[in-house]
Amino acid sequence: MSISMHSASVPIFTTMLGNLSKWLDKAEAYAAERKFDPVVLLGTRLAPDMLPFTRQVQIACDGPKFCVARLAGVDAPKFEDNEATIAELKARIAKTIAYVNSIPAAQIDGTEAKDITIPRREGSHVMQGEPYLKHFVLPNLFFHVTTAYALLRHNGVPLGKGDYLGLGS
Amino acid sequence: MSISMHSASVPIFTTMLGNLSKWLDKAEAYAAERKFDPVVLLGTRLAPDMLPFTRQVQIACDGPKFCVARLAGVDAPKFEDNEATIAELKARIAKTIAYVNSIPAAQIDGTEAKDITIPRREGSHVMQGEPYLKHFVLPNLFFHVTTAYALLRHNGVPLGKGDYLGLGS
Repeated sequence: MSISMHSASVPIFTTMLGNLSKWLDKAEAYAAERKFDPVVLLGTRLAPDMLPFTRQVQIACDGPKFCVARLAGVDAPKFEDNEATIAELKARIAKTIAYVNSIPAAQIDGTEAKDITIPRREGSHVMQGEPYLKHFVLPNLFFHVTTAYALLRHNGVPLGKGDYLGLGS
Repeated sequence: MSISMHSASVPIFTTMLGNLSKWLDKAEAYAAERKFDPVVLLGTRLAPDMLPFTRQVQIACDGPKFCVARLAGVDAPKFEDNEATIAELKARIAKTIAYVNSIPAAQIDGTEAKDITIPRREGSHVMQGEPYLKHFVLPNLFFHVTTAYALLRHNGVPLGKGDYLGLGS
């Protein structure tokens, strides 16, 4: 079976978002064990001019959501960016995974050369489907999940490479 | 043109490694401006039990190197892991990019179902080419480049999303 736009995107999205959700469980357990409010973790940043943990999770969800919508040519559902607890962030991830899985593979396959318009602050940017996936969506997704992971590790949450990859768990 | 094992791997590898090399230039310029020895950055860690910057860069190189070698069925060149300066890390990245680009696309394409053996501490692990690329190589590559980026940002090096993605530069 040959690699396709769907097989090169959705399984990576759902695996990494599923892993991220499990890191949140470990973060909550760590906070309980150390007796601090887990909400403290949601505001942490690696640098004062980087986005806090909550935004890293929200944006990690938005990338896959917009990717499948744009490739398939449908409107993405709007999420409110109002999550204030770990449980709410987990719900955000769950609804993103459900949405991403709801788009039939056939609507995503064959979009390698489709023009995708990305709205940006400085005006929209057009990329073909394949470079959009490889050089925009995937790097951004991994940027935000890895930054979320790094924030948890930096703050003591016990996670390892097995948690990151989600292999064998 | 349809997405292939080569097009889903090598362009991502070379783009992200090329971006990483440019972050090193910015790290060196920042150290000069602030008058500290840039070697200090190479030992920084986000947590005491995470690997230091130098290892993040070395491992970011090894993933793509071993990926193309294993998919193509050839022996990967051995790198000594003895880099001690930013210039040496940049040379490591450059020789990795050159190696990755030296393998003909035809030797990588069509390896979706090829059994790939990954040596691990707890014994070797076998994955087919496509899941190996999507669920092992790409997440690991992005883990290490993003952790390197996070370490530089955490230590004040002025980098932004444009540097991370390498778009428009």
